[in-house]
Amino acid sequence: MEKSNNKINAAIVVIGNEILSGRTQDINVSFLAKWLNELGVKVEEVRIIEDNEKSIIKCISEIRKKFKYIFTTGGIGPTHDDITSKSIAKAFKQPYGYHKEAYAILEKYYGPNKFNEGRKKMSMTPKKATLIYNPSSGAPGFIVENVFCLPGVPSILKSMVSGLKNKIVGGEKILSKTVSVNTVESEIAKSLEKVQNKYSKLEIGSYPFFRFGKVGVSIVIRSTKLKQIDLCLEEIINFLKKKNIKIIDRD
Amino acid sequence: MEKSNNKINAAIVVIGNEILSGRTQDINVSFLAKWLNELGVKVEEVRIIEDNEKSIIKCISEIRKKFKYIFTTGGIGPTHDDITSKSIAKAFKQPYGYHKEAYAILEKYYGPNKFNEGRKKMSMTPKKATLIYNPSSGAPGFIVENVFCLPGVPSILKSMVSGLKNKIVGGEKILSKTVSVNTVESEIAKSLEKVQNKYSKLEIGSYPFFRFGKVGVSIVIRSTKLKQIDLCLEEIINFLKKKNIKIIDRD
Repeated sequence: MEKSNNKINAAIVVIGNEILSGRTQDINVSFLAKWLNELGVKVEEVRIIEDNEKSIIKCISEIRKKFKYIFTTGGIGPTHDDITSKSIAKAFKQPYGYHKEAYAILEKYYGPNKFNEGRKKMSMTPKKATLIYNPSSGAPGFIVENVFCLPGVPSILKSMVSGLKNKIVGGEKILSKTVSVNTVESEIAKSLEKVQNKYSKLEIGSYPFFRFGKVGVSIVIRSTKLKQIDLCLEEIINFLKKKNIKIIDRD
Repeated sequence: MEKSNNKINAAIVVIGNEILSGRTQDINVSFLAKWLNELGVKVEEVRIIEDNEKSIIKCISEIRKKFKYIFTTGGIGPTHDDITSKSIAKAFKQPYGYHKEAYAILEKYYGPNKFNEGRKKMSMTPKKATLIYNPSSGAPGFIVENVFCLPGVPSILKSMVSGLKNKIVGGEKILSKTVSVNTVESEIAKSLEKVQNKYSKLEIGSYPFFRFGKVGVSIVIRSTKLKQIDLCLEEIINFLKKKNIKIIDRD
C-alpha cells in the first residue's frame, strides 16, 4: 500500500451518508474501477465516508500520499450537505473561494438572472484547483494535486471522465480472462492453488455464483502479460477436463 | 470517528479484488447498512480492500478500536484466494486452525467421503472465534471480539445475518422521512440550509436524481426523534409550497 514511483495505483473515496445508510446503491466505484483499469491504473482501495468535514479531511490526508491517484465522488453540489470542495481545500491548506473560470462557466450556463446563491456555490473550489469540465450539467469538478473530485450522480460522473484521459498517466493495462464452470469451489480449490503457486506473478481469483438456480464458479486470471495468462488458462482447462467439470462460458 | 462508549456505530470491510476491479458490483454494503440501521447501529465507514494478508491485517488493526462493530465480507471460502480467516487470526495474534464445531458441522454437511481438503479449510478460524451459522450452504462465518466475518456471496450473507440479532446491542433506531420534489437542488439550497441550521441535530440530506428523463431532488431527514423529524418536515413542505415546487412523493 505504500506509494512507490512506479506503482500506478488509485484509491476511490465515496463521500456520502446516503451510501452509508444503504439508501442509495453506489455504482460509481465499479464504473471508475473499470475505466481506470482500461488506462492501466489499478484501484487498490475504496473508502466510503460520511459527508462531514472532519471525516473528509482525515481520509484525504491519510491516503493521498499512498496512491498515485485519488478519486472522490459526491458532495460537490449546491446544498448545505455538499462540503467536499471546502473540506479538500482544508486538507490541502488552500484558501477556498470562487474559481474564476468555474464562475464564468456557470454564469453562462444558467444566465446572469438565474445564477443564484446555490449555483454560485458550485463555482467555489480550493484556490489551486484545475477544473474538470462537465458536458452534461455545467457544474465542474476539480483536481488538486493528485486528487480528482467528481460528482455523485452516476450519469454526470460518466460524462465527465472522458475529458480526464490526458490527465492520467497509466501503466500497462491489466488484462484478464475468465472461465466459468459448473462446479463448486471446494472441488477445484486444490488444483487451482497448485496453478497459482506455479504462476505466482498472476492473480487468480475464484468467485462462486448462483445463476438461474445453478451454482458455479468463475475463475479469473489477471495480469499485464497476455501470454502468461494464456499459459495459465491452458493448465486450468486441463485440470478441469481431467475432473470432468463442464465449462459454461469463457471471456 | 473516535470510538466512545455510547456510540453505537459500525464499519464494513469488503475484502475482494473482484469488487476493486469493477468485475463484481457490491450489493452487500447497502444490505448490511439497512439491516444494521434497523437494529439502531449506524454504519460510519466502509473500506473495500484487496484480498492480500497485509491489507487485511492493516485495515482491521487500524479500525477495530474505532467502531463498536466491524463486519467483513468475502474471503472465507475454500480457495487459495480466501485468506480472511487466516489474516483475522494474525490481526488478533491468535493461532489459526481447525474449529472443532465448524469441522463437525461441515463434516456432517458434506458427509465424511466428500469432506475434502478445500471443505476442511472452511472450518479453519482464529482460535477464539465464535461461529456464525450458515443455514444455506453449511460453511459458517465467525466472530472474533467485535469483528464479524461473513461471506461475499450476497444470498448466503443474507441468510446468515438473521442469526446475529442477539449478538448485537443496538441503540435507538435511526428514523428517516423523505420528500421528493420536482426541482433542482440549487432552487432549494438556501431555504434548506436555513432549516438545517434551525434543526442542527437532525441530518438533512439532499440528493438529486434523474427518473424517466426528469430531474428531481429527494430531501431526506434522519434522526432518532420522530417528532423532530415531523416538525422539520413541516417547515420544508411550507417553503416548497411557497416556491410552488411540486412534491412527487413522500415516504
